[in-house]
Amino acid sequence: MISRVMAADLPGHLGQQVTIAGWLHRRRELKSVTFLIVRDRSGLAQVVLHGPEAGQFPEETVIQVTGQAAANPQAPGGAELIEPVITALSGPAVPPPFDLYRPTITAGLPTILDHAPTTLRHRRLRAGFEISAASVAGFREALGKLDFTEVHTPKIVESATESGANVFGIDYFGRPAYLAQSPQFYKQAMVGVFERVFEVGPVFRAEPHDTARHLAQYTSLDAELGFITDHHDVMAVLRDVVAGMVTGVRERASSAVDLLELTLPTVPVRIPEIGFADAQDLMARQMGQDPRGESDLAPAHERWLCEWALREHGSEFLYVTGYPAVTKPFYTHPDPARPGYTNGFDLLFRGLELVTGGQRLHLHADYLAALAARREDPRPYGSYLQVFEHGMPPHGGFAIGLERWTARLTGVANVRQVTLFPRDLHRLSP
Amino acid sequence: MISRVMAADLPGHLGQQVTIAGWLHRRRELKSVTFLIVRDRSGLAQVVLHGPEAGQFPEETVIQVTGQAAANPQAPGGAELIEPVITALSGPAVPPPFDLYRPTITAGLPTILDHAPTTLRHRRLRAGFEISAASVAGFREALGKLDFTEVHTPKIVESATESGANVFGIDYFGRPAYLAQSPQFYKQAMVGVFERVFEVGPVFRAEPHDTARHLAQYTSLDAELGFITDHHDVMAVLRDVVAGMVTGVRERASSAVDLLELTLPTVPVRIPEIGFADAQDLMARQMGQDPRGESDLAPAHERWLCEWALREHGSEFLYVTGYPAVTKPFYTHPDPARPGYTNGFDLLFRGLELVTGGQRLHLHADYLAALAARREDPRPYGSYLQVFEHGMPPHGGFAIGLERWTARLTGVANVRQVTLFPRDLHRLSP
Repeated sequence: MISRVMAADLPGHLGQQVTIAGWLHRRRELKSVTFLIVRDRSGLAQVVLHGPEAGQFPEETVIQVTGQAAANPQAPGGAELIEPVITALSGPAVPPPFDLYRPTITAGLPTILDHAPTTLRHRRLRAGFEISAASVAGFREALGKLDFTEVHTPKIVESATESGANVFGIDYFGRPAYLAQSPQFYKQAMVGVFERVFEVGPVFRAEPHDTARHLAQYTSLDAELGFITDHHDVMAVLRDVVAGMVTGVRERASSAVDLLELTLPTVPVRIPEIGFADAQDLMARQMGQDPRGESDLAPAHERWLCEWALREHGSEFLYVTGYPAVTKPFYTHPDPARPGYTNGFDLLFRGLELVTGGQRLHLHADYLAALAARREDPRPYGSYLQVFEHGMPPHGGFAIGLERWTARLTGVANVRQVTLFPRDLHRLSP
Repeated sequence: MISRVMAADLPGHLGQQVTIAGWLHRRRELKSVTFLIVRDRSGLAQVVLHGPEAGQFPEETVIQVTGQAAANPQAPGGAELIEPVITALSGPAVPPPFDLYRPTITAGLPTILDHAPTTLRHRRLRAGFEISAASVAGFREALGKLDFTEVHTPKIVESATESGANVFGIDYFGRPAYLAQSPQFYKQAMVGVFERVFEVGPVFRAEPHDTARHLAQYTSLDAELGFITDHHDVMAVLRDVVAGMVTGVRERASSAVDLLELTLPTVPVRIPEIGFADAQDLMARQMGQDPRGESDLAPAHERWLCEWALREHGSEFLYVTGYPAVTKPFYTHPDPARPGYTNGFDLLFRGLELVTGGQRLHLHADYLAALAARREDPRPYGSYLQVFEHGMPPHGGFAIGLERWTARLTGVANVRQVTLFPRDLHRLSP
């Protein structure tokens, strides 16, 4: 390994001869002195030059600098490297599409995305992915504590059964196949094996919409558990998982949180809950609109309900439960007390649906009846339905879209800004 | 949540009225007494019945049993449930394709795979996936300690550049696209952002081979790191990662290890290494075959070298370094001291290549030269090559096939037995 100290550790080596290595972040030439700022994964370090060796490398060149660590209160971390010997580890770099050293980003989203391998080096853009990685770590940790087992399920599937629409077709050794829209069927099946399972993996949607929130591929954080009483048990687990994700971000990505000046949400011990019909009644009375009779919440309704939850309950999170059966997938468990309504729920956060989940059907006969009621042929569901012939406990689960979560947390206007190399209607590279 | 104690915890509740819930694993009817064995994710619990309520449910029915926990040295864990009240949580189950309660598996691989959601409930089959999950946890933990950041990269790509052959085509909004064969290009790009990255995700190979080790989708454990001196730095990280995976299995899947009577390998502090050409010379002298002049190792050679490493070095692991350039991808860094050879390596384990890795090219000009030497058009590599124009440090990495690793560790004859719902030339469901 290139023997080096990390930029952030430089202050611990005052008076010593050390080597640092990283990208030439910034070059500042004054009359008699040149400052080089070197960036590595730990932070920035200042190098001071006095001679003609100064400034031969353009920014983003990878360099290795050996010199003496000296105290300087004005340098990052209070230390700098003096009397340096500089070696380039790669040839002179081509300038990036915008100045990566400036605190603000001076390029638009298309430029950022077209040159993502380079532009993501910018501290503010990288921060989103630090938060994303920390969230996933928190997700896994929370579920690990609750005895969930991680699985990896097929992404190529035989039939496009879950929603029918918006699937990518693939030529599978001459046969038609599809990219999985979710691990739904597989995670349910694995409840029969492990009781509690989760998966972190890509899902694919052939979304023909060109909006700020639609992606053709995103990372789905899925969980499913058995032996529940009803969807409230799933909601209790989800509450702990979301709290774990916030903790993960706070503990593992604190410098990203500081840099972006984010206020992380507090997850209440009990997230407030409102029934779908009650929410409609409430809006009819207080919002000046009457959404009763509609079968789903419009974006404006989700925003209004979030404001209401913050006002009434001091919570940035709100559970909406008991969605009408027509808006939820056929495998959603009905509400035994209210025909036409379900044990499906959404978790709203900062004005938007963040998570969708619910209790699922677990009896074979109920699946057949649900498909018949929707006039669907049960045959394409063959291997899925088989699972329920062999004894399945009451169960449920949820799915969190990682990019949507990160977008909400960081407040970016477009989910693509926190999606690593996004795929959409128009974008297939880099 | 259904209020219950786990089967494994029953001995801690002697004399108390408790509820357990799980699958009816086995029913044994004797003359005056019936034993029900209930299986949950923690293990087995025995229930004793004396009356006509006995035995109305077939095996694999999900039941909930309330009764008194009583000591019985002959019962699993030394405790059983007496005076039980039994409720079925799902209707009577259809018998599984083979008896899941028998210690040995009495079905062939096609039956096991066709009915995977049910057959994986068998303790010996489930054990493989416990080991797999524990391995992934160990992989992440080892890399987390080394300051690696987790990424999730696109699985739909614009061009089939990495190997050209064996890619799945997909209809991407009317344009041709492909399923990613590896995250190679993306993980290299992210070295420019995070220095050290890893990914756990699916990769896709349209393998037209129907063998015991080829899969159309598998889980790839990928890592890549910058600021290396050469491939030996990558090998040192890989050594720690493999050791972490073994530790993960030992700590998190100990009951699976015990059940399968596995001997986990010891990972030497320094895994022995042999150069490709030296390995050929050695075999020419000692094996009774002369492989010199061949550009890759045949399976018989890998087996022989593993036996040699165990005999000479007491190691089940062996690094083979310095593969000829013709057998390694174009982005492999050449050995500066030996034209025609590379800084690419394989890690052999128990007779088979387990991991492949190496130092990569990091200079833009070297990429252009490498493609020109192979008479390849650089244009399809456009967004990949761009990365190297903006300053990339010397770097390298490796990829571990999760299913192959688990197969080696558990000693199964066919990798499908430790692949969750495998995809291959003939199999697209369940």
